[in-house]
Parts: sequence; structure tokens; C-alpha cells
Amino acid sequence: IKSKLPHVSTTIFSVMSQLAQENNAINLAQGFPDFNTDSELITRLNYYSTQNYNQYAPMFGVEKLRILLSEKFTKLYQSDYDFQNEINITSGASQAIFNVISTLIHPNDEVIIFEPAYDLYQPTVELFGGKVVPIKLKHPEYSIDFEELKQKISAKTKLIVINNPNNPTGRILSEEDLKQFEKIISETNAYILADEVYEHITFDEKKHQSFAQLKSIKDRVFIVGSFGKLFHITGWKIGYVLAEKELMKEFRKCHQFNVFSTHTPSQYALADYMENAEHYLHLNQFFQEKRDFFIEGLQQTKFEILPCEGTYFLSANYAKLSDLNDVDFATKLTKEYKVATIPFSAFYQDKTDHNIIRFCFAKKNETLEQALEKLSKL
Amino acid sequence: IKSKLPHVSTTIFSVMSQLAQENNAINLAQGFPDFNTDSELITRLNYYSTQNYNQYAPMFGVEKLRILLSEKFTKLYQSDYDFQNEINITSGASQAIFNVISTLIHPNDEVIIFEPAYDLYQPTVELFGGKVVPIKLKHPEYSIDFEELKQKISAKTKLIVINNPNNPTGRILSEEDLKQFEKIISETNAYILADEVYEHITFDEKKHQSFAQLKSIKDRVFIVGSFGKLFHITGWKIGYVLAEKELMKEFRKCHQFNVFSTHTPSQYALADYMENAEHYLHLNQFFQEKRDFFIEGLQQTKFEILPCEGTYFLSANYAKLSDLNDVDFATKLTKEYKVATIPFSAFYQDKTDHNIIRFCFAKKNETLEQALEKLSKL
Ligand SMILES: CSCCC(=O)C(=O)O
Ligand SMILES: CSCCC(=O)C(=O)O
Repeated sequence: IKSKLPHVSTTIFSVMSQLAQENNAINLAQGFPDFNTDSELITRLNYYSTQNYNQYAPMFGVEKLRILLSEKFTKLYQSDYDFQNEINITSGASQAIFNVISTLIHPNDEVIIFEPAYDLYQPTVELFGGKVVPIKLKHPEYSIDFEELKQKISAKTKLIVINNPNNPTGRILSEEDLKQFEKIISETNAYILADEVYEHITFDEKKHQSFAQLKSIKDRVFIVGSFGKLFHITGWKIGYVLAEKELMKEFRKCHQFNVFSTHTPSQYALADYMENAEHYLHLNQFFQEKRDFFIEGLQQTKFEILPCEGTYFLSANYAKLSDLNDVDFATKLTKEYKVATIPFSAFYQDKTDHNIIRFCFAKKNETLEQALEKLSKL
Repeated sequence: IKSKLPHVSTTIFSVMSQLAQENNAINLAQGFPDFNTDSELITRLNYYSTQNYNQYAPMFGVEKLRILLSEKFTKLYQSDYDFQNEINITSGASQAIFNVISTLIHPNDEVIIFEPAYDLYQPTVELFGGKVVPIKLKHPEYSIDFEELKQKISAKTKLIVINNPNNPTGRILSEEDLKQFEKIISETNAYILADEVYEHITFDEKKHQSFAQLKSIKDRVFIVGSFGKLFHITGWKIGYVLAEKELMKEFRKCHQFNVFSTHTPSQYALADYMENAEHYLHLNQFFQEKRDFFIEGLQQTKFEILPCEGTYFLSANYAKLSDLNDVDFATKLTKEYKVATIPFSAFYQDKTDHNIIRFCFAKKNETLEQALEKLSKL
């Protein structure tokens, strides 16, 4: 069999979760909560399943859920997306991103991504014959080098992928950053894939700046979101895409043959649950407390903690603790100290290693405490 | 935006379901039951969701479900698939098929499909730069012309897609047919995608012949199945793929970046429910009764009923009732007689029209009765 992805192996998230399990380690690697979602949401799921909402949902997604998303975007970002023609529910944010790439990328198209980058962008682009042009975020502040961006954009650039709030760095973009993007994009033909799955997890009163706010380039932007990250249901695999009508038309052509539709009773349950905006607006506070709790503990160790403005990931430099490369260090941490993390080099095409690992702090305080105790033995 | 699928519009299933809804017609078009699944399965879903099985499932799928599938294939087809390396749970059979195609098809590869064909095969092949080579099933018996197959297979043929039991024709392949395929395939380098989502819906004591039985070409076969069709939960979007180790390795490379994993509490619920094989082995009898009930009613009309050996679809020729083409006839039937169906021409690249429409009889007897009454007015 002639491989479509010859250089790809199993995603780092599966590798580290597997290693955690084998070694009975606390899993701060793959990004998911270890606490349950609200029982109110589960009650709604059970209700709709019992009432035979178990057959195909509409390909676009359940209407009420799309209407609520439309209202949310109007309210929070003053941006208008028509629920009928510009919003689609997906089988998780992964499938949303995959499908945006499948919609846009023709052979030899170039796609700019910023590294460290979530590990699905690059192989997906390559699956459709595209070519990734990586730009490294400036180290160690992980900000965007707009000069390099201007140099690397060309007539071949079909798409720029931006993940904000950023996984794994925990950094967020400012209003000024978005204006810079808007200016640069408007001078080219490039599309934007704005992966905003952590939009409701920003800290210290800093507001999430959504690409949905950039009206002048709305016809070139795909926004991706995730109910998994919003309501602690990463395993339900439900996300969404917003895009201007003409883009959405093409997105749906591909989407209908990829998954067609998404778990029906879950969508109806989410639609009821989302009616109360408090169900996601409290997340900033909720996760900020966890971040602060985890940071306080980590400060007792020799890890050098990097700033965390958003997402539920915290990164730290371990150079004062070990000479190992980051993969070996993360492996050792899992096997010997029983705490699993993600080595940052997994997020670079050239495996750049700055001795940084990523912790997921979307865990019960009790779990974080246990992990901190193990880390204190380093 | 430069379309990836310029000739594609909305799938016929969404179009007809939409038309049914707008006209308040009985929907015998899109294939899904209008009765609920077993409450035992829903109880399990609720149980696992309540117990916080709401985070990412393993990328391969939940282990117990894969073990049960492995056991089922050993028992029913004497074929060995290792649950660890040769079975994967998918987000419905659609995503399974999409992902097999994404795994195999490089630009300019040829894919043979038999028409009438389910409408996702062709655009998916084209999305990856492949070229579809259609072979029409012989009309009106809808059997395979193996001579034409031998002529059309070439060094460029990467894949042959076979849907058995066949949607929309309701025909099934015999042991002899499978032997012919085995012989032809073994003289080429082609892979097989065996879409067997209706494997447990065959009638009149006729046994489903699975491609899993063909040991000599096991290293070139992907088998696709569907829990949606098995347990009346088309909206849960859970299916599976079986393939020999080396194929599965490549399949997973793509799968992990497409959806990553599938609805967790549903998978655990299915694993419990599948332990009792009666939960799917009774389907032949269950749907045969519905088929016979529907046929009995349809015999009172001028429709000419085509043979139905499997699936929950029955096809009929309406030439004695109308001169319209099949799309116009199906539209008229929906708008004026309030019964939605699928016109067969939607399943041909060249829109071949033999005046045939497809009915889905996976409905309550009450619904079938109402539909028959409306059809009797024709
Ligand atoms: C799809 S598994 C990866 C989960 C995640 O978002 C992360 O750990 O970064
Ligand atoms: C994915 S909607 C189509 C359902 C189906 O299998 C059919 O109607 O043939």
C-alpha cells in the first residue's frame, strides 16, 4: 500500500494517553477534563434519546443550535451569521478543520501555519496535496512575526491557519494583532481558518478577539468552535463552523460526504443547554482558578512557568531539571514520576526543542494536587 | 472560491427529506426508521453519560466494542480480525467510507463503482483527485456484468467499491459472485471497499455473503459496517471498519486527523448491547415482515415491484402510472400524493432513468399503511 501520509505516525495525543495508561500515570497530556459535565445536560441527552431523536439530524445540524450560535456571535462579536446558510454543526472541531481544508485545498496550494501548531493541520493539508509553509512564533514570547508573515505570503497562499487562544502556548491575540491580520489578508487572496475552540477560556479580564469581528474580510474567514471544550464533553465530538454563504456552500458539499450529520440527541440536548449563556460565560473564572492553583504548586518546583493567557494548557521549561530532550523528558516523567505531559517538539515540523512541556490543567483540584506532589519529587 | 466539487449539489437524501418536510409528506425517501431503538440501549447510554464516559474515546474505538466485532466476524464468517490492529470504530459508515477512500486514492487513481450507486462514492473519490469508472448493473435484474468488469479493470484501478446487500436495488451477491470477484481481484492490484451496512438485513433464508470470507485477498479488503442500520440509531453516526493490519495502519493515519474519535457514551452503550447477538440476528425476520406487508399493499397499485432480497429499500417501476421522468415523478408524488421517495436516476453519473423509484420500508406498519393509502390514489 502506497501511503498517503508516509511521514506521519500515531498522533502525540494517543501516544501519550496510551503511555499514561500503561504506566498508571496521571494524564495531564491529552486535553480533556477528568470531571463530568453538568447533570442537566445529561438529563437532556437522555430525554431526547428516549423521545426517539435517534435518527439522522439535518446535514446542516439541528436548527435551534444553529440559531443560538448565530445569536451568540451577534451578541459577543457584533458579527452576523445567518443560521440557515452560514452555520454548520460538525463531528467535533477536528472534523470541522479537516473539512475546511478539504474544501479549500487543491494540489500545490500553500498553507501558512504558525508553530508550535496543533498536529492535525499539516497532515490534513498534505492529504489534499497542499504544501505547508510553517512560520515559527517568536521564542520565548510566542508572538507572531508579522514581517515574516508578509514575506511568506504569496499568490500561492490559499489559506492561513490561526489558532487563538493558542494551543499549546496559552497565548492570545490582541485587537491590534487582528488588525494586522486584516490588513495583510486584504492585500492577498488567502483564506483564514480561525480555530477558536478555546474562545471562552481567557484569563485576567483579557477578552477573546474573534476573527468573526473582522467584517472587511468576512468572505474569506472560516471560524471553528467546539462544544467539547465548552461543556466538558470532549467525547461527544460536536463542533461547529461559521462562514459566509458562498464558503459554506462549498463546505457543505464536502461535509455531506464526510460524516453527513452528527449525533442527534446530543445536538438537541446542547441546544437546550446553551440557552443559558451562563453555562459557558463562567468558564473564564472556572479555569482561571484551576490555572492559578496549578501555578502556585508548580512554583515550588524548578520548572520555569511560561505565561498562560488562555486555553486549559500551561507550559513550562524544564531546563533546570534535566538535560534530556523534551520527548525523553516527557517519557521519563510519565514512566518514573507518573505524570504524563506533551513535549512541545511534537508541534514543530522540524521538531524544535526548547525544553518545554505542556500540562493540561482541566482537572479536579484533587488530581492537580496529586500531580503536583509527584512533580515535587523531581 | 474555486470549487473542489463543481458538479456536486446537495445530496438527494437531504433534498428529498427537505421536500417531504415542506409538503408534510410521509418520508419514505431517506433511509431511517421512524420507530425508536430499544429502551435498553438508551438506558445504557444514559448510564455511561452519567458515569462521566463523556471524554475522548480511544482513537481506535472502545475496546470492548472492537472485541465483540472481532468475535462476530469469526463466528459468522470464519474470518479473523484482530481487535487491536484490524478494527476501528468510525463516525458512521459514511465517515468510514470517506476515510477508506482518503487512505487509498492518489491523484489519477481509478475507482470502479457499480451503478445505481450510493451517492457519496463518486464525489469522495474526486475530492482526492481520483477518477470514477462506472459499471452499470445489468437492467432490470441488477446483476454484475463480470465481463465488463474484467474489461474495465486496468493497472490504474486502485479500488473497487461493492455495496452488498445493495442500496438502492435490494439485490444481494451470491457465493458464486464473491468467488468471481476473488478470482478477478487476485489477478490485479486493486483493493476492495465492501460496504456491507445492511449485512443483517437479508430475506427468504438467503445468507449474507461477506467479503470477509475471502481469505486469499484479505490483505486488499476493507469491510464497512453500521450500528445505525443495525440498531435503529442512524442519528448516532457510529460505524466500523475491518481491514488487515497494514491497511488499518494507513487508515488510522487519516482517521486520527479527520474525526479522531467517536461519541464515547454511545460506544460503551453499544458494547453492552451487542453482547446479546439476538439484538441483531432477529433483523432479517423483523424487516422481512415489513417488506411483505409493504409489498402486499403495493400490489394493489399499478407499480411494478422489483425483487427485494435485502436492505430496507424496495424499488418499483412506475411506467404504467406516469410518463414523467423519475425526478419529476418523485417530486409530484411528494407534493401531490404526500409520499416522498428517491428517484433512481440520482444514483447514476449519467442520470439513467428507467422510471424507477425507491421506497424505504423501515417504518411502523401504521406509517406504511398510511403511505399505501395515499399511493392507492394514484
Ligand atoms: C483530539 S485529542 C487532542 C486534544 C487536544 O485538544 C489537545 O490535547 O491539545
Ligand atoms: C446519510 S442519509 C442516507 C441514508 C441512506 O442510507 C439512504 O437513504 O440510502
